[in-house]
Amino acid sequence: MAKLVLIRHGESEWNLANKFTGWVDVNLSETGVKEAQQAGARLKEAGLQFDVAYTSVLTRAIKTLHFALEGLGQLWIPEYKSWRLNERHYGALSGLNKKETAEKYGDEQVHIWRRSYDELPPLVGTDSPFHPVNDPRYANLDPRTLPAGENLKVTLERVIPFWQDQIAPQLLDGKNVLIAAHGNSLRALVKYIEGISDEDIMGVNIDTGTPLVYEISDKDLSVISKDTLTKA
Amino acid sequence: MAKLVLIRHGESEWNLANKFTGWVDVNLSETGVKEAQQAGARLKEAGLQFDVAYTSVLTRAIKTLHFALEGLGQLWIPEYKSWRLNERHYGALSGLNKKETAEKYGDEQVHIWRRSYDELPPLVGTDSPFHPVNDPRYANLDPRTLPAGENLKVTLERVIPFWQDQIAPQLLDGKNVLIAAHGNSLRALVKYIEGISDEDIMGVNIDTGTPLVYEISDKDLSVISKDTLTKA
Repeated sequence: MAKLVLIRHGESEWNLANKFTGWVDVNLSETGVKEAQQAGARLKEAGLQFDVAYTSVLTRAIKTLHFALEGLGQLWIPEYKSWRLNERHYGALSGLNKKETAEKYGDEQVHIWRRSYDELPPLVGTDSPFHPVNDPRYANLDPRTLPAGENLKVTLERVIPFWQDQIAPQLLDGKNVLIAAHGNSLRALVKYIEGISDEDIMGVNIDTGTPLVYEISDKDLSVISKDTLTKA
Repeated sequence: MAKLVLIRHGESEWNLANKFTGWVDVNLSETGVKEAQQAGARLKEAGLQFDVAYTSVLTRAIKTLHFALEGLGQLWIPEYKSWRLNERHYGALSGLNKKETAEKYGDEQVHIWRRSYDELPPLVGTDSPFHPVNDPRYANLDPRTLPAGENLKVTLERVIPFWQDQIAPQLLDGKNVLIAAHGNSLRALVKYIEGISDEDIMGVNIDTGTPLVYEISDKDLSVISKDTLTKA
């Protein structure tokens, strides 16, 4: 048996500003830092130890991982970052205020952009600072890889290869794995791990800073148990 | 040409307590945190950007790296940790107060333990909590690898394979490399890179939190220039 723990990063500065964020590299707010530290305390209280950690290439998830690992006294374990664990890319909505966007396009449209499984947001052009082709952290990737906007379906399609090639082999080897990432990249993982339908996943929310602990079979990756660490 | 930047971690809690530290996993003091943040500000001021970062498996170096990368806005680059970049292991002196040790063994003996190139400190037994065989972070290593006490010569002998296999290939590939480590693992690197004699290296000190910037030939790894970033 192996343990897999997922942590969604806490509040960011753009949660506070009520803006669409996605791949924009916004920092944690003070509250977000506290949420990450509490997550570390909860993991320590639960007596968990990890062999390897994964996170996205976005600061708010990386810092959440570091605060959690420090709380655990395990800052020394190997850590790997990948764009595949990034938040869903919000396309041309990136950086827009959610309330103003709803006033402009209507609540119904914004709800669809936020919540439908396979509806893409308006795409961003390669001339925009929000297109990943203009961000040096993606300079080593085939530009055709880089999204101009994603829904949960597309997000899942780029998260799963990372599960297949990196995470699953560790779990099959009996290793305990910690992942700090984002609301939608984690929903994609949870959908795949638990076999949740396209329809049902839209009602699944992962709480910020609240470790989700899976016991996973190291024979066939089936879920043995699932627990949420709500208190330290 | 490639850039290689070395940062020695700042003040730790045991610097404050005047204790021999070595492989003991002591945290940064508040001053040490500030030194690491200042190092990040100096790197940013110098316009440096990195492709990859290395550190030890000791919290004080890892946190120094994270503060420096955050200051640079480059927390997203790949980071690798290795015991080979650890501080010199202080053997049975680990955890002892430096002043009390000098009173017990004499200033002359303590000076030799601290400063001679090839004099080993008293070794620690495998029954001691200070022997790395009792620390889970080294559980995947051949136990014969683990030191019971090191001088600078032995430290250099285990640092250099890491240079050869990890750091040098990156520099030969033209990549900019950041290393956050310790007084003695960095002295070992500096000795090797600059070809400093066994005798002369004992007079070389690397200041804490003060990035040492090398321009290195990506043809033959010769040193093109060396600079110390003393002010932001």
